[in-house]
This record gives sequence, structure tokens and C-alpha cells, in this order.
Amino acid sequence: MPTYRIELAYDGTGFHGYARQDNVPTIQAALEAALFRRTGVVETSVAGRTDRGVHATGQVVSFTVADPIDEDRLRQSLNRQLGPVIAVNAVVEAGDDFHARFSAVGRRYRYLILNQPVHDPLAARTSWHVAEPLDLEAMDRGVGYVVGAHDFASFCKKAPGRSTIREVSEATWAPAGGFFELSIGANAFCHHMVRSIVSTSVEIGRRRLRPEAMRDILEARDRTRATGTAPARGLTLVSVDYPPAPGAGDVT
Amino acid sequence: MPTYRIELAYDGTGFHGYARQDNVPTIQAALEAALFRRTGVVETSVAGRTDRGVHATGQVVSFTVADPIDEDRLRQSLNRQLGPVIAVNAVVEAGDDFHARFSAVGRRYRYLILNQPVHDPLAARTSWHVAEPLDLEAMDRGVGYVVGAHDFASFCKKAPGRSTIREVSEATWAPAGGFFELSIGANAFCHHMVRSIVSTSVEIGRRRLRPEAMRDILEARDRTRATGTAPARGLTLVSVDYPPAPGAGDVT
Repeated sequence: MPTYRIELAYDGTGFHGYARQDNVPTIQAALEAALFRRTGVVETSVAGRTDRGVHATGQVVSFTVADPIDEDRLRQSLNRQLGPVIAVNAVVEAGDDFHARFSAVGRRYRYLILNQPVHDPLAARTSWHVAEPLDLEAMDRGVGYVVGAHDFASFCKKAPGRSTIREVSEATWAPAGGFFELSIGANAFCHHMVRSIVSTSVEIGRRRLRPEAMRDILEARDRTRATGTAPARGLTLVSVDYPPAPGAGDVT
Repeated sequence: MPTYRIELAYDGTGFHGYARQDNVPTIQAALEAALFRRTGVVETSVAGRTDRGVHATGQVVSFTVADPIDEDRLRQSLNRQLGPVIAVNAVVEAGDDFHARFSAVGRRYRYLILNQPVHDPLAARTSWHVAEPLDLEAMDRGVGYVVGAHDFASFCKKAPGRSTIREVSEATWAPAGGFFELSIGANAFCHHMVRSIVSTSVEIGRRRLRPEAMRDILEARDRTRATGTAPARGLTLVSVDYPPAPGAGDVT
């Protein structure tokens, strides 16, 4: 049975996160309702279960259907149904064993901070406004300590019995279009991980903590050592990485 | 009596425009309520009465008060009261004869178009999504015809008895951060003028009209010749120009 991959962007402001919940609007419920109307498909899998208020520009969803579909027409139908706050950027056929969540080998997020005395109404939905001047260089130095394979228990919402070991491939703070931008990639993220790292980064930027505090908190593997969780609105799932399709680039 | 100037930014999405109206949220009503609570001032003037759904990054408002005020504290108080969708970037003392509307000698607006096959949820509030490919060079050539002093009757909402002569100092379409951006400055704008010029620009960009059509419609001085009015959400009042304060730069 053919399997398809959907690439999705959304403004998470008005949703209670990606994952379906009773009686509240979620991305999953909106997408699956639209998909069902067109294809009869009732089940999808997703690469990143973003939290309430978190955005995406490169979310990936997969589903399997009995008969082949016209990808372009499905994309257009979904966009017509989903309105301005969700966009389907692509529908493409994937290998039969493709699974948006289990096939993913990496996720990339960005977090935007607006660091100026007064907030900006046109950036309010997509960034965290911090009025106090931040030391961006110290923040970048601090966040460098999370790169590599670590137990991120200090930066993960408690979920007893679940591993909190993740491998971070890149984490940098840099200026970007008037914002301070964290760009962070990992094989996977535990719940609240990016926003907890942002919170500690800002404590470092405010010079309440030294850059080495990021390492110390990480090594403590103790959630009570965390400094907090930054607001959801600054966070966006940017992209998901998959291995090359089998055979792609092969010479036979 | 001292006169003060307020510099204001707002996300116009949820407001019925700048100007006060009964029973609907307006920027003016929100600002004046906050200002009254702090200062007792009941009357303000504004440089640009933006329409429903139009944004601002550099709106200017002025008011006069019996006794001098602490500018920084007023700015902070207004920002606390006005919440995330309105920002007061500055409160500064101005000359006694300063008037936000009548002293202004120029206004500058931008209009953003997102020209790509699928819309972008994170740009939905601040740009007009046009899926069909647009010829940006033709749009820029066309909009060049509005520069100079002209009777803009074709591009103004009908307002019998009011002059529709305006002087446009600059009008260009250029790429900017993934968008097509119109940057347009004039001594003043009549109602719907920028959005009407955008509508004709897009007809030119779609190659339904030649660039010279902008000149032909302008010269017709006839509102029925206009091609329509582009959506409000793409429009932002960027700045207002005033003459240098009397004495500024003088050598006496």
C-alpha cells in the first residue's frame, strides 16, 4: 500500500499543540479531518509532537492509503480546507516502510528572542521579548556545552521510565534579522528540552549565570536544577531529517 | 502647555482601524483609555488614520497636557496597559505647536506580497499571498509612474469635495526577506491609495496589464478605472516625517 509524506507549516498560536486532545483545537485533528474527507485515511504519524503554542515550518507527517492518490490535488485540497494558519507545502510518495516518526534521524528547531527595550507587536506571536540587554556571545558559549550525546534529564519534563539521552549535533546562538536566534539540531528532543535550554541561555545572557552553568546543570541530571522553561511562542520546528531513500545515489 | 509625541507600533489584525468607532476595538480607543488613566488627557491627534487590519511600526500621535510628565514612566505605563499587540516605542516632548497630523510632511508605507505556490502561516497576518508567479520587474516599472505630484482620483476611495492631489516622493517594488516589498512615500495618502496601487501592480505582475496601465489609470482620474483594493493585512505604516524642530541645526 502506498505511503505518503506531508510537509506542513503552521502558526501554533491558536492550537493546543500538535497532538489530538479532546475538545480543544489541535493541528492533528484539523489535518486528519481534512485528510479523511479527501482520502478516507484515519491515521497519520508525525515527526515532532510540538507543544501548545509552538510553530512549525517543516513538520513531517506520513500516512498509508489503499490506492495511489494524486499528490498535487491532495495538497491543493488540504490547503483549501485548512485555511491561513496551516499550510501543506508538499505531498510526496515515500517508500512503503517510511514512517514520519520512526524513520526520522534528526530534528531541527529555532528559537527567536527579541532583545530590545520595547516589544514588537508584529513579532509577538513568534518570539520571546526580553527587555534586559543579553550577552549573546556568552549565550552562544554556554549553549555549546549541550552539543554531543548527553543525558538531558535536567532539561526534560519528568516522564518516569523514558530515556532522556539525546545526541545534539549543533547548537548556536547568533543574530538573525533583528532577533537572537538559537539553531539547534538533535536526533530527537525530549519534552520541553529546547525551551529549558533557552531559559538557561537567557540566565547566562543576563549574566546571572556563567556560561559554564549550562554544563553544570546538564551534568547534574536533575530537573530541579533547571532554571525554567521559555515561552512556547518563540519556538519553531524547522525541519526533519531522514536517511536517503534506499537505492538513491546507488550505482548498480 | 507641554506637547508630547508618541511613537507607536501595532498589529492591526484585531482592530477596526486606528480611528475610534462605537462598539468595536480601535487603536485610538485603546491608546486614549491608557493615556487618560495615567495623565487625564482625553484628546490626541494622529499622523495616519490606518484602516481596519492595517499595521504600523512608526505611527505618530501627539497630545497636550497641563503639566510636564515623566516621558519614560509614561511609556512604561502605556506598554504595561496596552499588551502585546500595541507597543509605545517612544514618548518625547515636542514643540508647543507640534501636531502629529498637521505638522507631518511625509508618510511612508510598505506593502508585502508573498509570491510562492503555498501560503506561509507565519506570514499570514502581515502579507498578501499571491500564488501565481509575478513579474517583479514589470511591477517596479509600473509603479514608477505614480512618482510625482498627481491627481490620484483613480486610486482614492470616493470622498466628494476632498482633494485627491498628492505628491509621491518614492515608489519601488523590490525583493525583501522572501517577500516582494512595495516601499512608497508621499506627503500624504488618500483613503485606499496604497492598496489600490498594489492591486494594479499585481495585475501588471500577472501580465494582465502592461506597466503603462498604471499611468493610463492614473491619468484617467476615474475611480471606476481602478482594478480593486489589495487586502489590508499586507500594509504597514512605517514612518512619518516632520520638519526639523525650529532652531535645530541653527547657528545663531
